Amino acid sequence: MKYIQSSKNEKVKQWKKLTTKKERDKSGLFLVEGEHLVEEALQAGLIQEVIVTESYQPKLAKVKFSGHDVFVIANDISKLISETETPQGIFAVCKQFNHSKVAGSKYLLIDAVQDPGNLGTMIRTADAVGADAVIVGEGSVDVYNAKVLRSAQGSNFHLPIIRGNLHEWIDKLQQQSIPVYGTALQNGEPMYEVQSGASFAIIVGNEGQGVDPSLLAKTTKNLYIPIYGKSESLNVAVATGVLLYYLRGNK
Amino acid sequence: MKYIQSSKNEKVKQWKKLTTKKERDKSGLFLVEGEHLVEEALQAGLIQEVIVTESYQPKLAKVKFSGHDVFVIANDISKLISETETPQGIFAVCKQFNHSKVAGSKYLLIDAVQDPGNLGTMIRTADAVGADAVIVGEGSVDVYNAKVLRSAQGSNFHLPIIRGNLHEWIDKLQQQSIPVYGTALQNGEPMYEVQSGASFAIIVGNEGQGVDPSLLAKTTKNLYIPIYGKSESLNVAVATGVLLYYLRGNK
Repeated sequence: MKYIQSSKNEKVKQWKKLTTKKERDKSGLFLVEGEHLVEEALQAGLIQEVIVTESYQPKLAKVKFSGHDVFVIANDISKLISETETPQGIFAVCKQFNHSKVAGSKYLLIDAVQDPGNLGTMIRTADAVGADAVIVGEGSVDVYNAKVLRSAQGSNFHLPIIRGNLHEWIDKLQQQSIPVYGTALQNGEPMYEVQSGASFAIIVGNEGQGVDPSLLAKTTKNLYIPIYGKSESLNVAVATGVLLYYLRGNK
Repeated sequence: MKYIQSSKNEKVKQWKKLTTKKERDKSGLFLVEGEHLVEEALQAGLIQEVIVTESYQPKLAKVKFSGHDVFVIANDISKLISETETPQGIFAVCKQFNHSKVAGSKYLLIDAVQDPGNLGTMIRTADAVGADAVIVGEGSVDVYNAKVLRSAQGSNFHLPIIRGNLHEWIDKLQQQSIPVYGTALQNGEPMYEVQSGASFAIIVGNEGQGVDPSLLAKTTKNLYIPIYGKSESLNVAVATGVLLYYLRGNK
């Protein structure tokens, strides 16, 4: 147990830097916040340091974190590293995942989704439907962004979330005979043209632009969700849920 | 065309008040913001006053708003009535809907959903799937809240959004032989136990607590969406989309 009273402490400076993508990429670390996510990180074996405020300290179950460095910080310091309005007072510095081997039959591919709440919700939904991995292409919000992690509610610890090149992934999945479905309002087919199946990958795209046409050109088929009313489209996280559950079906 | 330069103008005070639920309830009016929503409000015939900033004024299509009071306000005033970070500079004061008669076969009932983004997204999804009305029970965020309207992307103008008592609505719908399905993680059945059908009502509930047990006790059946992975639940707006599209089916 180490006590830190000064916001100028080197550790504090380092944690604060982890709120930026640049530093997360450089260090291979990320910061999680709140009891639930710290618990999930612990179970995933990714925790490097635990940080609690003085106020939180009496609630800290010490046995649970034995073997980990625990830092107790002055309450005020938590505001510097927190990205919520009312910090719970517990944080963890975690190692980023290293998923060298990924295997499976159900994939979600994400192209340039900008809103962290959407991306986190999509990761949560992919977990729920039993997907084997989520592949996040370039141009999307960072998967280790605090709001993404909060919206994912721990699901980022449950299945591989991989930053990758979507063109390469489409090739790789198709070589494994996994059908890859794009989503496109124009020149697509209603999702009902495809039967629910044991293996599939689905690509969903940017909130405004949809999936990049160069990706759509490589897919097995491009699908859309029928709109029966007068709205122009669905929210991308909702659309992802509808498609994933439809494609999985009642198996 | 009337010009307003002072933030102390009575009109400005009145518009500012419309950012509160209390004033919206009292006046039967609400405020929409941005070109898309103002256009939707115009088409719905609900506009009472149009408000534009001096900067926006040259873009204003006058013919479109003939017959409506148009106010041009100093740019700074827009910050007082806007609930976005970068106001587009166009607003409308609208009359609230009056849906005395509602008929149909597909309903979404919402119990105590708190997050405006969730509620708006659910209204957008209900529109997309061709629902006939959305019934919003007590304890939910106000349907005329600016963030609800923004997330609904105009769908609140496309189908009746009704504030009502959900107990009474369950009775009323069941009297019309419309099956009413609750959603419940415990003591429910997988949604696949129910066949897609021409008529249904579905009740979704609060982000943390789910649907009130006294409502679940009155339903035709209570359903859940199977979770195949390790997440504990789905986001309520995603769950609503999955359920609505499943229940509608490929008709």
